[in-house]
Amino acid sequence: MTQAIVALSGGIDSTTVLAYVLQKYGEPVQCVSFTYGSKHNQYENEAARQVASYYKQPLMEIDLSAIMASFKSDLLKSGGKIPEGHYADANMSKTVVPARNIIFASILAGVAWSNDVPIVALGIHAGDHVIYSDCRPAFFYAMNRAILYGTEKVRLKAPFLNVDKGSIINWGLLNEVPYHLTRTCYKDQPVACGLCGSCQERLEAFVLNHVQDPIQYEAQNGPTENTVSYSRTTP
Amino acid sequence: MTQAIVALSGGIDSTTVLAYVLQKYGEPVQCVSFTYGSKHNQYENEAARQVASYYKQPLMEIDLSAIMASFKSDLLKSGGKIPEGHYADANMSKTVVPARNIIFASILAGVAWSNDVPIVALGIHAGDHVIYSDCRPAFFYAMNRAILYGTEKVRLKAPFLNVDKGSIINWGLLNEVPYHLTRTCYKDQPVACGLCGSCQERLEAFVLNHVQDPIQYEAQNGPTENTVSYSRTTP
Repeated sequence: MTQAIVALSGGIDSTTVLAYVLQKYGEPVQCVSFTYGSKHNQYENEAARQVASYYKQPLMEIDLSAIMASFKSDLLKSGGKIPEGHYADANMSKTVVPARNIIFASILAGVAWSNDVPIVALGIHAGDHVIYSDCRPAFFYAMNRAILYGTEKVRLKAPFLNVDKGSIINWGLLNEVPYHLTRTCYKDQPVACGLCGSCQERLEAFVLNHVQDPIQYEAQNGPTENTVSYSRTTP
Repeated sequence: MTQAIVALSGGIDSTTVLAYVLQKYGEPVQCVSFTYGSKHNQYENEAARQVASYYKQPLMEIDLSAIMASFKSDLLKSGGKIPEGHYADANMSKTVVPARNIIFASILAGVAWSNDVPIVALGIHAGDHVIYSDCRPAFFYAMNRAILYGTEKVRLKAPFLNVDKGSIINWGLLNEVPYHLTRTCYKDQPVACGLCGSCQERLEAFVLNHVQDPIQYEAQNGPTENTVSYSRTTP
């Protein structure tokens, strides 16, 4: 009997959610990754496969690229260049994908209902709140009710809803989450750039934990202990 | 500038919603139909094309059949036989498609966001409340909030949320809605069966309006003025 479904992008947050859900609810946990046309999609999907395989949990891959092909976002292959700079900077808002989490949560609710799984867990967290409206608590609680009322049995969970990435990694390091397998960079290249907002946020979060990020970066001028202040990650 | 998006299945309710939305908000209205693996999908999609063409509004067709292929429902090609009998009977609950309206509303929210359309209108109505949890007011209001908070600009509308099908048709007849083009039957056959719950509910609604349903039926023993009581359509 599947205990929960986890939306697994292969990034830091969803990988840590998977570890957390496995601890809290037991196995098996059905992992689901989405293809939706983002520039880094093939790399994050590969990371999701490696993470699911590491934890020995089943992975379902759902292709939404045809449906979301006309959506407008610089995160998508159809959009402009990935902006560089801090994650919370105004230009990162160009990487918002319209209704992405609404759509992911809805489809996972249908998969959960069809397979009698009571829980769908998402990796949304406090660091997303500034930029992504469909990661904020107000959205999450309304969506949770919509799915519960609409299915009469499935509940959304977001264990890190109000936790920032530094604290997520803190929990993950204590619980041996395989961050060396994860993918965070938004750019269409195999090695993480180190310059886009997503890379910057990740690097800062490791610095705050006084731990070296185990993945490789193209640029060597990322955040350091001297340039990161705690306040920047909790805007 | 597109005024609204209407989920147009080609049935009575969504066709009447399209007419209502065109009157209330003006044109153009973007119609969207979904392919999701139901037995009557090709017939309702064709009806949607004819209705959109009648009103001279653009129609977008979205294919979810791969995504919803594993979903469990007798409405789907993968499921059991379409049950016959009254729409509100217990066996009609086998035609519930897991999270269908949650998924449709979510995708339409993404299309609306991407194209700066402020409104997404659904044809859910009071007759659906008994069977379909994702047609009830509690679901609708939560979903409306989830989409508004998640997109910061798109609102769901359900003009007939608390209106039964008899009253929907009453409005539609006064406003010359082309019911001869619509498709309601759940079965995999070109001519409506007249026996499934969906046909029965439609036939009753026309009887309550003292009007002959303009479409053809295979079975001739549908509801009549003598067998229909108003209370049956408002359980």
